[in-house]
Amino acid sequence: MVKTAAEIATLQINGDRLNHTVKTIGAIGALPNGGVRRLAFSPEDIQARRQVQTWMEAAGMTTTIDTAGNLIGCYPGRFPDAPALATGSHLDTVPNAGIYDGTYGVLAGLEVVRTLHENKIRLDHSLELIVFADEERTMIGSKAMAGQAQLDPDYYVHPHYAPLPPSLAAIGGNWDRLTEAQRQPGSLAAFVEVHVEQGPVLEAQGGPIGLVTGIVGQRRYSITIEGQASHAGTTPMNMRQDALVAAAQVILAVNTIGCADNGDQVATVGSMKLTPNVANTIPGQVEMTLDMRDLSNDRLDQMIAALEQNMGAIAQTTQTRIHLRPKLRNEPVPVNSHIHHTMGQVCEDLGLPSAPLPSRASHDAQIIASLTDMGMIFVPSDGGISHAETEYTSPEHCAQGANVLLHTLLRLDRHYGSTEEAAKATAI
Amino acid sequence: MVKTAAEIATLQINGDRLNHTVKTIGAIGALPNGGVRRLAFSPEDIQARRQVQTWMEAAGMTTTIDTAGNLIGCYPGRFPDAPALATGSHLDTVPNAGIYDGTYGVLAGLEVVRTLHENKIRLDHSLELIVFADEERTMIGSKAMAGQAQLDPDYYVHPHYAPLPPSLAAIGGNWDRLTEAQRQPGSLAAFVEVHVEQGPVLEAQGGPIGLVTGIVGQRRYSITIEGQASHAGTTPMNMRQDALVAAAQVILAVNTIGCADNGDQVATVGSMKLTPNVANTIPGQVEMTLDMRDLSNDRLDQMIAALEQNMGAIAQTTQTRIHLRPKLRNEPVPVNSHIHHTMGQVCEDLGLPSAPLPSRASHDAQIIASLTDMGMIFVPSDGGISHAETEYTSPEHCAQGANVLLHTLLRLDRHYGSTEEAAKATAI
Repeated sequence: MVKTAAEIATLQINGDRLNHTVKTIGAIGALPNGGVRRLAFSPEDIQARRQVQTWMEAAGMTTTIDTAGNLIGCYPGRFPDAPALATGSHLDTVPNAGIYDGTYGVLAGLEVVRTLHENKIRLDHSLELIVFADEERTMIGSKAMAGQAQLDPDYYVHPHYAPLPPSLAAIGGNWDRLTEAQRQPGSLAAFVEVHVEQGPVLEAQGGPIGLVTGIVGQRRYSITIEGQASHAGTTPMNMRQDALVAAAQVILAVNTIGCADNGDQVATVGSMKLTPNVANTIPGQVEMTLDMRDLSNDRLDQMIAALEQNMGAIAQTTQTRIHLRPKLRNEPVPVNSHIHHTMGQVCEDLGLPSAPLPSRASHDAQIIASLTDMGMIFVPSDGGISHAETEYTSPEHCAQGANVLLHTLLRLDRHYGSTEEAAKATAI
Repeated sequence: MVKTAAEIATLQINGDRLNHTVKTIGAIGALPNGGVRRLAFSPEDIQARRQVQTWMEAAGMTTTIDTAGNLIGCYPGRFPDAPALATGSHLDTVPNAGIYDGTYGVLAGLEVVRTLHENKIRLDHSLELIVFADEERTMIGSKAMAGQAQLDPDYYVHPHYAPLPPSLAAIGGNWDRLTEAQRQPGSLAAFVEVHVEQGPVLEAQGGPIGLVTGIVGQRRYSITIEGQASHAGTTPMNMRQDALVAAAQVILAVNTIGCADNGDQVATVGSMKLTPNVANTIPGQVEMTLDMRDLSNDRLDQMIAALEQNMGAIAQTTQTRIHLRPKLRNEPVPVNSHIHHTMGQVCEDLGLPSAPLPSRASHDAQIIASLTDMGMIFVPSDGGISHAETEYTSPEHCAQGANVLLHTLLRLDRHYGSTEEAAKATAI
């Protein structure tokens, strides 16, 4: 019953089974138009987690829920004291979600374990499949695991959401013992997450597997422009201090900076508030948001410097005052180069086209990267649509991503030391 | 006791008395910061109208309230069957108003009558002083007088305001007999309104009296820009259809068209709504208002044609769809050239600097212009501030405007025929 290396090299996950589980979980909290609403800690979230827990156990995993509400399945390795390999993602969704975001990553990991289990393959390292708690809002699951959670529950208070302590209790967590969810350095050998791209880059390249180069740093600012509100009829054009005319110039400057040098950076004004915002009054004040992302902090610094220079000139010509205030800063997170290289080799060996790209969205993987070596695999999203009911990834791409995950984990199992005797994947 | 022509030519209104009445009416509905809230039909509006009615009667006027709620004082002329000269404005205000808008025009007219009365001067023509009902919202008073009111009360229904029929009843009007307020053609010889400028043009010229050249035509549009909402992180710059980037270009095009040729036209985007309007999503849709005003319909046509050409190019480069929909169109209203010329002569003879300018705000005068010859006099507004508690016009300018009104009416009294024997202003 021992698998040969050649047999293992051609191992395939069961694509039909994987896509069936995606549909099954997608039905929990289903919306009329094909999407899903499965908010963190909701009855639907709890139901989906229970279903996955049942499947984990049927696939030979032991399961636990840590104090941060993370559901952790463990497929035991030959050397249980060695650091574990891990994969996973999340089952909670935004209010009007598609069925792939997060869920696909969990179920691809489940399919990998099912494939190992039915082929009676045990790895040297234990393999953990982690369903992180509340990725979409607080990231409390991954942050507590990495020791980055805020311990003041008021930090997470939000008028639209229930308080965290009872929410955590509902899924089996325990706010009062949150710090116990923190993993020790060295307890994980590596973490690999597979996720839908949530953008149009891979589709535009014909649908290769995405080899994530890193998770971009994000900086968010508020921009306030103060002019002078006055009557839109009685104020001549040359006597205006129109905050919206200044804002329009800032928006175009942001866009120019985002498009410069054909770089991978992005820069967006997404939200705006005019005061007084009536048809017959010149806008006296505009408040707007700026979101900038790139893999390089240097480039982000340069972008902000360029924008500040532009804003100074705009303020002068429009007779307005422009203020830029930082609101949020997430540092760029690189992926582990060995894992990145391994994923590329796997794609080549499986005959799958692949392409490098940054992740410009946030994922649990970027938090876990502070604990261990991290890698991410993206599969194409139709039309780049994400956080919307029309989100779609083809069954073929879902299967391909899971196969890349399977073989990446198999190779990492050999790469990372487990005992003094290097071991090979072998039959039980 | 008969005044000579020379005595009449040097007649002056009583500036202190005028400014005292402005302060007295300004105290009715006073706000803490020096402004006033005297919404149409409110107890404060009714109180102010009663005070003015009392003053009218003390100044030798008979008073009536027509079915549209207009308070009309009549200072009888020597030839009561001749068409009346008329002046007036309104006492109602916006929610956070200054004490001058409208009120000053009513009280300047009152001061003119007081001056005639105390000097025992009777004109050939009766002189009417009209306090128009609800100028700030429905203009029901002037519109009913001109036969332009909507007779369906539902037309005036608004969630923030009481229905018109009981409101009219509260000030002595009668909705069921609204059409009786309509004046017959030929019943008025001329109407002259004096008003604060509500803009900064006169102040910037050193504070001359404004000789209004006409009331601008106003066109209002809604502009809708449809792009594609998508993730502000995961969507590369070159794959975006950012409705806000397109909107910024439209705003700048509107501003350029407004500033073209150093003309008197104005063009304003005052209100905007983004969808979904969140920091991490590229705006998928922008709706905004466009307000354009000029004395010339030809120029307004050219402005819109230029904008439509710009919008076509912007839609193409930004991959968006841009729709322009007309929402409101008020035709330009010229002032009577003889009245305009007379006002200029009066200023010259009084040694007051004067300057022509369009009125770019709405006034009852533009409605009454459909009934009779119309003229308007503006006095400077400090800082151009209007519809705000800090609105201010100096006592000197208030007095000057009333003197120009007095002498304009005296000259118009001689210009317009009253009987077969041309008559002169004479002692009672």
